[in-house]
Amino acid sequence: MKTNSPVTWVHINSWKDNQLESKNDLLAVEEPLQIKLQFGSELAWKEKALTVTMRTPGHDFELAIGFLLAENIIQKKDDIQLIRYCKKGKPEEKGNVLIVKLEPSVEFDQGILDRQFLTNSSCGICGKSAIDSISTLGKKMEPGIPKIKSELLSLLNERLMEVQVGFKYTGGMHAAALFNLEGDLLILREDVGRHNAFDKVVGAALEKGSMPLNQHLMMLSGRISFELVQKSIKAGIPILVAVGAPSSLAVSMAEEKGITLIGFLKSGSFNIYSGKERIFFPD
Amino acid sequence: MKTNSPVTWVHINSWKDNQLESKNDLLAVEEPLQIKLQFGSELAWKEKALTVTMRTPGHDFELAIGFLLAENIIQKKDDIQLIRYCKKGKPEEKGNVLIVKLEPSVEFDQGILDRQFLTNSSCGICGKSAIDSISTLGKKMEPGIPKIKSELLSLLNERLMEVQVGFKYTGGMHAAALFNLEGDLLILREDVGRHNAFDKVVGAALEKGSMPLNQHLMMLSGRISFELVQKSIKAGIPILVAVGAPSSLAVSMAEEKGITLIGFLKSGSFNIYSGKERIFFPD
Repeated sequence: MKTNSPVTWVHINSWKDNQLESKNDLLAVEEPLQIKLQFGSELAWKEKALTVTMRTPGHDFELAIGFLLAENIIQKKDDIQLIRYCKKGKPEEKGNVLIVKLEPSVEFDQGILDRQFLTNSSCGICGKSAIDSISTLGKKMEPGIPKIKSELLSLLNERLMEVQVGFKYTGGMHAAALFNLEGDLLILREDVGRHNAFDKVVGAALEKGSMPLNQHLMMLSGRISFELVQKSIKAGIPILVAVGAPSSLAVSMAEEKGITLIGFLKSGSFNIYSGKERIFFPD
Repeated sequence: MKTNSPVTWVHINSWKDNQLESKNDLLAVEEPLQIKLQFGSELAWKEKALTVTMRTPGHDFELAIGFLLAENIIQKKDDIQLIRYCKKGKPEEKGNVLIVKLEPSVEFDQGILDRQFLTNSSCGICGKSAIDSISTLGKKMEPGIPKIKSELLSLLNERLMEVQVGFKYTGGMHAAALFNLEGDLLILREDVGRHNAFDKVVGAALEKGSMPLNQHLMMLSGRISFELVQKSIKAGIPILVAVGAPSSLAVSMAEEKGITLIGFLKSGSFNIYSGKERIFFPD
């Protein structure tokens, strides 16, 4: 799925009006961008990995410039001598590694370099500095089981809306909710960060001794990033359902690890991005 | 604004039907949580800061447990000997620093500890490991200028919707858009990460030589986190406008730094969370 386009086509199944339709769908592309910094002087250039951000390809140079400004590494355009894509590296890194060379005169707090940090919610790769390591985590799910009825799935959005109290009052929280395959809500958590809501639900399940979660599904109020699929894999949850859209990387990782991924869930309709065999449709 | 509640009341001004109404509004609380790890053995316990995540207070222990599982540091509940809040530290850190003590038997990849990482989109504190440093960045805006007309503000949502092509096709992208105070769209960028979209716009402005941006406003398609206010401060943009809700920390930081913060912008209505004096209302 390597692409430098901001959007990509995938084949999906759409469930609507009790009918399954096979069609193509456009996804937002999500890919890691690593920014490396070159600084120092002609006598001794240093190079250090600065950050990895999960971004939509396009305008990468601008992204790097804006990021460096926000992080107080540069103060003006002329602080940058050169920006270029790294030519070395593995095929999957092509176009995903940027090198920013600072003018020798630029001074910044080098403490920032001791902490390679991730600029978005995808903590899945925080602990890994190499871009190609992102798809290596977690075990593949057992195919085909468990199964869930399509009628039940298409009711989950209403159930979630009933209980999202934090969202109802503030409009500013994400929800993650663990359901069993009968559609009973087991654990709900809300948070300004969707990854936090997910972690809280899994932490609660672990505390309650409810693991493994291989007969459960996680329902999310927002979009599905790569990171949330990764958390699902790590928690052993085979079905991930969301009100919003998945990213390209979320779909490819779900396919790779055998996760059933469902997006755009509304009352009576949803899109299936992977793992259709876990859904039981009426005759 | 230190609180351990998931929501908090703030005083706002709401503009609707050409009328300004003063009222109270509930916000989702956003506060940093630092997770520290204790590991090793009775002979030699080690303690290391693991991560800072911007989260909504509540269920913090679950959050830590779920996070440690997702990051492969623990595999089961019993890997944790104890979780507690840190009693030391500054007042603003109380309830925001957790210590997780692992069982001596637990083995994990300690490379993760060399890279303190941030688990959400708030890269504003990535480069700072101390929780109390988050509000020290950037200069305060000059008060009262520039001004923008309320009629113009309430049209921005429609302008943004017209041009959000990536969102229209995928439903999975955030937009950030730089406008001048006459309401002309200058730069638009879309990305799976709202912080990336923001950085791209600022990077483009820097490349075009459009800095400073003190006669501009930034419009966002989503919610407003603390981090986005911080990026606005750093870029010198005095007015930040969003379709979604701000977090508690976004509002308190906007107040502190003199940013005009507007949320829930729809055609003809919006909420003003801070900096009302920059808006010019009809008589």
